Amino acid sequence: MSSTAIFDNDDLRHMARALQLAQQGLYTTTPNPRVGCVLVKHGHVIAEAAHLRAGHGHAEALALQQAGAAAVGSTAYVTLEPCSHHGRTPPCAQALITAGVSRVVAAMQDPNPLVAGQGLAALRAADIEVCCGLLQAEAEALNPGFISRMTRQRPFLRSKIAASLDGRTALANGQSQWITSAAARADVQHWRARSCAILTGVDTVLYDDPQMTVRTLEIGRQPLRVVVDGQLRIRPSASILRGSTTLLVYARDPSNKAASLQLPGVELLQLAGEDDHVSLPLLLQALAQRGINEVLVEAGQTLNGALQQQQLIDEYLLYYAPVLMGSGARGMFAMPDLTDMQQGVALDIVELTMLTPDIRIRAVPRPAS
Amino acid sequence: MSSTAIFDNDDLRHMARALQLAQQGLYTTTPNPRVGCVLVKHGHVIAEAAHLRAGHGHAEALALQQAGAAAVGSTAYVTLEPCSHHGRTPPCAQALITAGVSRVVAAMQDPNPLVAGQGLAALRAADIEVCCGLLQAEAEALNPGFISRMTRQRPFLRSKIAASLDGRTALANGQSQWITSAAARADVQHWRARSCAILTGVDTVLYDDPQMTVRTLEIGRQPLRVVVDGQLRIRPSASILRGSTTLLVYARDPSNKAASLQLPGVELLQLAGEDDHVSLPLLLQALAQRGINEVLVEAGQTLNGALQQQQLIDEYLLYYAPVLMGSGARGMFAMPDLTDMQQGVALDIVELTMLTPDIRIRAVPRPAS
Repeated sequence: MSSTAIFDNDDLRHMARALQLAQQGLYTTTPNPRVGCVLVKHGHVIAEAAHLRAGHGHAEALALQQAGAAAVGSTAYVTLEPCSHHGRTPPCAQALITAGVSRVVAAMQDPNPLVAGQGLAALRAADIEVCCGLLQAEAEALNPGFISRMTRQRPFLRSKIAASLDGRTALANGQSQWITSAAARADVQHWRARSCAILTGVDTVLYDDPQMTVRTLEIGRQPLRVVVDGQLRIRPSASILRGSTTLLVYARDPSNKAASLQLPGVELLQLAGEDDHVSLPLLLQALAQRGINEVLVEAGQTLNGALQQQQLIDEYLLYYAPVLMGSGARGMFAMPDLTDMQQGVALDIVELTMLTPDIRIRAVPRPAS
Repeated sequence: MSSTAIFDNDDLRHMARALQLAQQGLYTTTPNPRVGCVLVKHGHVIAEAAHLRAGHGHAEALALQQAGAAAVGSTAYVTLEPCSHHGRTPPCAQALITAGVSRVVAAMQDPNPLVAGQGLAALRAADIEVCCGLLQAEAEALNPGFISRMTRQRPFLRSKIAASLDGRTALANGQSQWITSAAARADVQHWRARSCAILTGVDTVLYDDPQMTVRTLEIGRQPLRVVVDGQLRIRPSASILRGSTTLLVYARDPSNKAASLQLPGVELLQLAGEDDHVSLPLLLQALAQRGINEVLVEAGQTLNGALQQQQLIDEYLLYYAPVLMGSGARGMFAMPDLTDMQQGVALDIVELTMLTPDIRIRAVPRPAS
């Protein structure tokens, strides 16, 4: 399917606004994607809306509702291909047709390969002019988790690690609170808030007894907390088992603790992989099936090393505090010893930020060349 | 001694130019400080010069020579208090007086507490208007090594470490070439070139057999190479013992290797400290006595850890490559294990730079609060 891809400055401006609107749903649309829509007629914006919460209106429907009869003959800018299927809300493609919209500009197709293009095709079949691909990279960056779930049947995994400048995350005795500053920790709250789940390992739970909740932002929900605990060593009194929902994933229960962990809000899931470890690919598959788009990993070197070795980390969110802890302290990634420098895991740094007094580095796996 | 400290915009501009001139000697003035001088008369620059090499003219002398008789009644901007003693060149304070300069603006006093102020006092005694302290911090930043040698009787120590994002400098098997990119290595050449000495440890020499020379810049000299080799384990065939001068510092010679190391350009120095280790404070004192201003440390975790523990590192020049090497690889600083997070060595990050694909962080020890 070819799309007319001739855009002018006005198209760019309106799509940029639609992307900005979509950001309003950053913390709340889960499991849905963040989507924005702008309706423009005779060069004037007549309506704009964002999808904010699953079960609530889609961006296109909300914008059409705002515009009313004025929608006839307008152009709709949408950050994602309008849906063509009946979900919790009626299909947006049909709504755009019914409202008499004459042109639809979409930033990207539906990432689900099974439905991609059907919404646009429905619009074209109704003689609406359709263009797709404007600011596509920006639109994709808005929904890495939704796209990953649709195309890879697993969530987008972002690993947050707070380390010293010499790459240490915890003392030899396990203590790790707090390496980074209040500014860095406040920043982490934003990344938690946009995530559908927080993934951690039992060692972190045993050492630090964290809550792993969103505290400084009012978002009306809490990400699912997921604890990888191969041998079910967690203490029933752990803070992470209180409050909102927690998924405890284990491989074996040698101490018969499962019964003592039947607590309100706690779900147990047995997913045995090799060597009595939890199967991480199966775990991610299970999370995708629950509608988890973005996962924030907040774990120590064991879980991070395992995820990295299985190439499951999509983005590294690294905070460095201006402190040295020495080579005896714990590192960031437990990995088999390298025997050649060429075996190092190559990343690309995509962002470097000063979060005084700390710094933040975002990096992604370097694509195979 | 109080100085008139009222400066106008023209003063600022001329001193900024004098500082810029001083930079011309960045790689070459050792053991002298980098100094620039601008002569201004009736608002016009009539001469400007920099000190470039020990034994060659001082900045003030060169500028006065350029100006000739026009120097009468001019203002001299100098980045360092003019000297008042007879060294390899006649005293600049006397030359300024003889030339009839009517005003001298200095960025900073001579850092040597035994002579500080004498040059300015001589000028004042000759009825010249004298101000001091304009852009002082910038002038001090130009000569950290010279200032350190004059005030602390030791060089300014800058430790350069190239690490992976997880804080690893070498594989478990010792291999460390090359973690960072060509861009980062080219940057290191500049820092080597401005140093009077490069300090490394015998482990780095044994594993990597580096030359530790300035190769990509033509500076007409090579920094002194200094190898800390407690038990004199270096091989006489080591590359670092070829070419320019190398100082081998040892505590004991259990294998009687000293005789085999009597090579051209190689000097041996025995400086035993505790536990059969080289005494690092004594080494730095010896380097200062040789006129070494800035030292660039390029070493592994053992020597860096020892220098850090003895609080001898004045600046950290950290390069991070976008690669992960895993917790089995070697770290940056061998230190006694911490038992409390508060025991971490606190630094302040003073500069953060992208050297694509790597990053560079400059940090300094955080002053005790």
